[in-house]
Amino acid sequence: MQTKTKVTIQVIADEVGLSKYAVSRSLAGKSGVSEETRRRISKVAERLGYTKSVTRNRASDTEEIAVVFYDIDPVNSELNVQIQTGVQQEAERLGVGIRIRWTHSDLALEELSANFAGLILVGPHTPEAIARAAAGGATIVRLGWTDPLQQIDSVSGSDHEAGQAVARYLTSLGHRSIAYVYGLPIYRGRHERYYGMREILEQNSEFQLHVMQFEEQSGFATALGELQERGVHPTAFFCAHDGLAVTVVSELLGQGFRIPDDVSVVGFGDFSAAMQISPALTTVRQEGRETGAAALQLLLDRIRRPRLPDQPPRSIRVVSRIVERRSAGPVKS
Amino acid sequence: MQTKTKVTIQVIADEVGLSKYAVSRSLAGKSGVSEETRRRISKVAERLGYTKSVTRNRASDTEEIAVVFYDIDPVNSELNVQIQTGVQQEAERLGVGIRIRWTHSDLALEELSANFAGLILVGPHTPEAIARAAAGGATIVRLGWTDPLQQIDSVSGSDHEAGQAVARYLTSLGHRSIAYVYGLPIYRGRHERYYGMREILEQNSEFQLHVMQFEEQSGFATALGELQERGVHPTAFFCAHDGLAVTVVSELLGQGFRIPDDVSVVGFGDFSAAMQISPALTTVRQEGRETGAAALQLLLDRIRRPRLPDQPPRSIRVVSRIVERRSAGPVKS
Repeated sequence: MQTKTKVTIQVIADEVGLSKYAVSRSLAGKSGVSEETRRRISKVAERLGYTKSVTRNRASDTEEIAVVFYDIDPVNSELNVQIQTGVQQEAERLGVGIRIRWTHSDLALEELSANFAGLILVGPHTPEAIARAAAGGATIVRLGWTDPLQQIDSVSGSDHEAGQAVARYLTSLGHRSIAYVYGLPIYRGRHERYYGMREILEQNSEFQLHVMQFEEQSGFATALGELQERGVHPTAFFCAHDGLAVTVVSELLGQGFRIPDDVSVVGFGDFSAAMQISPALTTVRQEGRETGAAALQLLLDRIRRPRLPDQPPRSIRVVSRIVERRSAGPVKS
Repeated sequence: MQTKTKVTIQVIADEVGLSKYAVSRSLAGKSGVSEETRRRISKVAERLGYTKSVTRNRASDTEEIAVVFYDIDPVNSELNVQIQTGVQQEAERLGVGIRIRWTHSDLALEELSANFAGLILVGPHTPEAIARAAAGGATIVRLGWTDPLQQIDSVSGSDHEAGQAVARYLTSLGHRSIAYVYGLPIYRGRHERYYGMREILEQNSEFQLHVMQFEEQSGFATALGELQERGVHPTAFFCAHDGLAVTVVSELLGQGFRIPDDVSVVGFGDFSAAMQISPALTTVRQEGRETGAAALQLLLDRIRRPRLPDQPPRSIRVVSRIVERRSAGPVKS
């Protein structure tokens, strides 16, 4: 919605006698404008009462944002769709133009960076690819794992805290012997959930944490058999993702276990499978849409007011929650 | 700075024939306005092109914010001053009025909540105190430790990641036997740094992590002696805060160790002591000012656009960094 009183980049450009492009770059703190010109533009902008605000200016004088998904990611498709929806809805609300791209190529990232004001990078892009993207000049927000204290703005879910919260939840239901179940070990979030669980369960010697790792769907029965042979009978299973929880629930049912009467199963993600399986999964909701929205907001903040050389980056964690359904309950006494 | 085209709360109030107070509360999503009135106000605000923006409206129609520090906190005074400065500078930039209070009383929090649009709670306020504050009606952002997946907006430093990053840093310098030194175990950040270190060091069986915990200043020599008797000779010490690092550096120097030639010491905080001790401390910078600024920004965002019932909270982590000075170096070969 426009009001007739709006001070646009065009108005400022007309006033200073420069191109809209130059004014836009100058106000965004980007290169290609001399310091003197930058000062002149800022002065005029201030006099006219211009505030660079995507809410006010809508798409008309806001540069475009690209959302770049890593294109080889077989396990996160449902989450990625949520993220994409979140970015798109927020962009629409703010009147910002966005483009979606799927690539892991360094070169493609560099080119995107040169053509967009900002990039949201979703997935395991390499440090080299990110460096290339940064060199292109665009402002960048990452959505994925960073190195410890990596100096980059990012948005993440609550993996570590989810492990802690599920451990607390299950022990509050009386569970003492808990198994953490995961498949491919290459995904860092799965380690983070384990670390979080461990931090809670190691505080009390009554609690036992067993790790079950297997790659094949049929691996669960074998892994469980091995635990049972050692006299270990977990009463609760925390699965690294809902897909794995579907496997665990169905295998346990097949072996005659009643859920949640005999054993509890908790998933992670709250994807569609969580409601398809019976009993419906108690799981941790990954907030993909809010994660996407937060990434866009952070990116626009940084474009509007670029981070100073000595200013630390931020990492926004969207706080998940446990969604209680039917697959977890009190331990049998 | 006002432009003649500004749509203020007063303009909307005149248009709908209600008090400025009622319009302000309504647009802030607060109680005391009927749903019908709220809709009417929103409609008029939309028609006039009003966007509640603290940048545009300055203090004139923005309610005040209170920053509430927990008043019994002997160890974080320097950090708290930084946080206070950060909030104040950001408030000044945005034209927002703030008040500083020091209290841990539930009643005082409830009263503050009734009289301010938003509260930033700094320190270990109890869940009951926070519930009281929330009941008062103000929007709240916490700055301090939360429970896993606690449903509250918060801002934090990088404790866990700092532990990971220091572990990587020291091992990259060739250190294999590393001691984590902490004093009072009641501060959760100190545990978090330990957890972070452990996650990195346990990945390689060459690395050894030793925990040294003691309460008294003189305890270090005893604790070190006990390690040495067991044949453990750490070449690097990561101290839970700079104050402790000052103790460790001086005790080690007193015992004839050369720093960093014989042993390395890394602190945490980057407070004034870090530059007072010789050799100057390599340490992790806690970004108090940026933390304060981020808290105010998040709070204003939430006041402007209240979190919907199903919308997850956010936790913003300000990313620290390691400041390399003179107290850490490569291990002696």
